[in-house]
Amino acid sequence: MQAALHAEEPAPRPVTIGLLGCGVVGSRVARGLLEEPRRHAEAVGAPLVLKRIAVRRLAKPRPSPITRDLLSDDPLGVAIDPDVDVVVEVMGGIRPALDCLRAALADNKSVVTANKELLARHGDELLGNLEAEVFFEASVGGAIPILRVLRESCAGDYVENITGILNGTNNFVLSLMTSSGCSQEEALVEARRRGYAEADPSADIQGFDAAAKVAVLARVAFGVPVTMDQVEREGIAGIGPNDVSDALRRGYVYKFVATARRTSERVDLRVHPELVPLGDPLARIEGAENIVFVDARRAGRLSFHGAGAGGDPTAAAVLGDIVDAARRRVARRGRLRPCW
Amino acid sequence: MQAALHAEEPAPRPVTIGLLGCGVVGSRVARGLLEEPRRHAEAVGAPLVLKRIAVRRLAKPRPSPITRDLLSDDPLGVAIDPDVDVVVEVMGGIRPALDCLRAALADNKSVVTANKELLARHGDELLGNLEAEVFFEASVGGAIPILRVLRESCAGDYVENITGILNGTNNFVLSLMTSSGCSQEEALVEARRRGYAEADPSADIQGFDAAAKVAVLARVAFGVPVTMDQVEREGIAGIGPNDVSDALRRGYVYKFVATARRTSERVDLRVHPELVPLGDPLARIEGAENIVFVDARRAGRLSFHGAGAGGDPTAAAVLGDIVDAARRRVARRGRLRPCW
Repeated sequence: MQAALHAEEPAPRPVTIGLLGCGVVGSRVARGLLEEPRRHAEAVGAPLVLKRIAVRRLAKPRPSPITRDLLSDDPLGVAIDPDVDVVVEVMGGIRPALDCLRAALADNKSVVTANKELLARHGDELLGNLEAEVFFEASVGGAIPILRVLRESCAGDYVENITGILNGTNNFVLSLMTSSGCSQEEALVEARRRGYAEADPSADIQGFDAAAKVAVLARVAFGVPVTMDQVEREGIAGIGPNDVSDALRRGYVYKFVATARRTSERVDLRVHPELVPLGDPLARIEGAENIVFVDARRAGRLSFHGAGAGGDPTAAAVLGDIVDAARRRVARRGRLRPCW
Repeated sequence: MQAALHAEEPAPRPVTIGLLGCGVVGSRVARGLLEEPRRHAEAVGAPLVLKRIAVRRLAKPRPSPITRDLLSDDPLGVAIDPDVDVVVEVMGGIRPALDCLRAALADNKSVVTANKELLARHGDELLGNLEAEVFFEASVGGAIPILRVLRESCAGDYVENITGILNGTNNFVLSLMTSSGCSQEEALVEARRRGYAEADPSADIQGFDAAAKVAVLARVAFGVPVTMDQVEREGIAGIGPNDVSDALRRGYVYKFVATARRTSERVDLRVHPELVPLGDPLARIEGAENIVFVDARRAGRLSFHGAGAGGDPTAAAVLGDIVDAARRRVARRGRLRPCW
C-alpha cells in the first residue's frame, strides 16, 4: 500500500487499539500489531498503537513482545477506555463480550470481532444502529474473506445460493476418519493436539458453530434478519468408522456441508453431514480447510478456498478488519486512504 | 443489504451514473442499472440513476430497456456532465478513455473502470491523487473479486506471491486444443464465436492482456509502482497441436500462467505458457475460467476461482464497483451505509 503520509505534514494522530482476549488468536493479533508498526502505518495512513489487552489471568506468561504493562483483567474497562479508538474482541462466548461491545459502540468506538455466536444471536442489535462500525470478517471462513466479498463485491449482483465447508474441526475429524479409519474420539484427540478443536468440542460436533456461521453469511448475502435458530441442524456425532468405510467403498466421503439458499418466498439454511462423490470439489477439501461456493445471477459460480481455522489465518482476518476500521477513522478525520 | 432508507426521512438525492461504452459489458451494466432500481437503491441507500451512455454509433439498435434518449456520441461530454456523479468506463483502449477519466477526476467525480491496459500504463497518474476515487475490480479476474481482497482483506497481512490463470481467452484456446486436438487458429474461431476473444486476439495471444493484469495485481498487493513493461512476457503463439498432444502423452497440459512474486530485494512479474502436471489444481481450470492463488504470511494459501471473461461476469464486477462508489458518495453526504 502506498503511504498516505507526507513528509511536510505533521505526524498523524495514531489510531489506538484495545484488545479483548489474548488466546490462540488474540496473542497473534497482538504480536502482529506490536511487531510490524511501520507496515500497518503505511496501510492505514496513521500509526496503529496497541494500548491495552484484557486477559483472564494477569499472571500467565505471554509470548514476547507482549509486556505486562499492556495487560488488564477488566475487559469492560478496556472497552470503554477513552484512549482506545478500536475495540477488538477475540474472547468468544456471549458474556462478557456482548456487554463490552455494547459499551464500546455506545462510546462511538469501532468494533472488530471474530465472535460468530455473538453475531448470530445478537447481530441485529449490535449492527442495528446504522452508525455502528462493526467488522467481523474473522467470524466466518477463517482467512477466507467471504463476508467482504458478499457485502461489497456482490453488492451489484443477486446471490442465490451459498454452500460449502465452514467448520474446520468437523472437516478435520471426518478427513482423518476417512484416511486412517480411526474413531471420532481418536480424531478429536488429534484435532485438539493441533489446536483445531477446543477442550469441549460439542459446539463443532453438534453443528452449532457452523449454524452460527451460515446465519451470519445469509444475513450479509440476503439482507434478511435470520438467527441461528432458523438453521436446520444435524451434527456429525452419529457418524462412526463403519459409516465412513462403507461410504468410501461406494465411492463417497462424508463432508459436513453448510447451505444457505433463497427463493422468492423464503430462505433455507442448513448444516448437515452429506455423502459427497469422491470426484466432487468438496471431497478434495482436506483437514482444517474451508471452501465456500457462491452462486450469483451475473457472476455465476465463484469459489473461495483457504485455511478455515488456526491462530495465524484467523489473526490475518482480524488484522485486515483492524486496518479497515482504522482507515475509515482516518478518512473521517479528513485524511483519505490511498487508492491503489 | 439492509436499506439505509427510513420512511420518515426525505427521499435521498440519487447518485447519477454516466456510462462510457455500450458493448458486451456496457450493455449488460446498463440493463442491470435500468432493470433493478429498487435493489440497487437498497444496497446504496439512495437511488442509482443511469443518466447518459456514450456510444460510438448512435444509430445502432440497442437491447431493451436502453432507450435512444440516453445515448450520446460525445464521451468527454458525458465524463464532465455536471449531472453525473460516477463515470463508468467500459470502452477499453487508451484514447479517448484516458482523457475522459482525467477530466472526470478533475471534476471530483468517482470513476469505475474495467480497463486494465489503461491502469497498467497510466494508473499511477490516475490514482496518484489520494483524493481520487477510482474503482477497477473488473480489470482483473472477471467476476473474481481479487483486487478488493488484496487491497482490503490482506491489508493486515504480507502477500508474498500471487499466481494463477488470468486470461480466459488463452485458457479457452489451450483447453480446446488439449481436449479436441484442433489448431490454435480453429480454437480462436470458436473463442470468438463464444464472445471470449476479440476480432484481433493479439493482445491475448501475445500476453499483453495478462501482463497488464499482473502489473495491476502487483501494484495493489505489493504497493510498489510497476508498469506492464516490467513484466517478463511470453505468449502462446508458438504452441501447436503437436506440442499439446506430446505434453498430454507425458501427463502434462499447457497453461498460460501469470506470476507476481516479491522478495526483500525485488518484484518478479511473469506471464508465460507452462507445462502443468495433470493432477495440479491449475490443470483443472477449463475454458474461460480464471483462478488466482494468493500466498500470504499469516493467511497461508488462499484461492479464488470463477468466470474470468464474458459480459455478465464482468458486468457483475463493474456493478459491484458502482455500488461501492455510490455508497461512499452517500456516506460523504452524512448518510452512512448499512453495516451488515
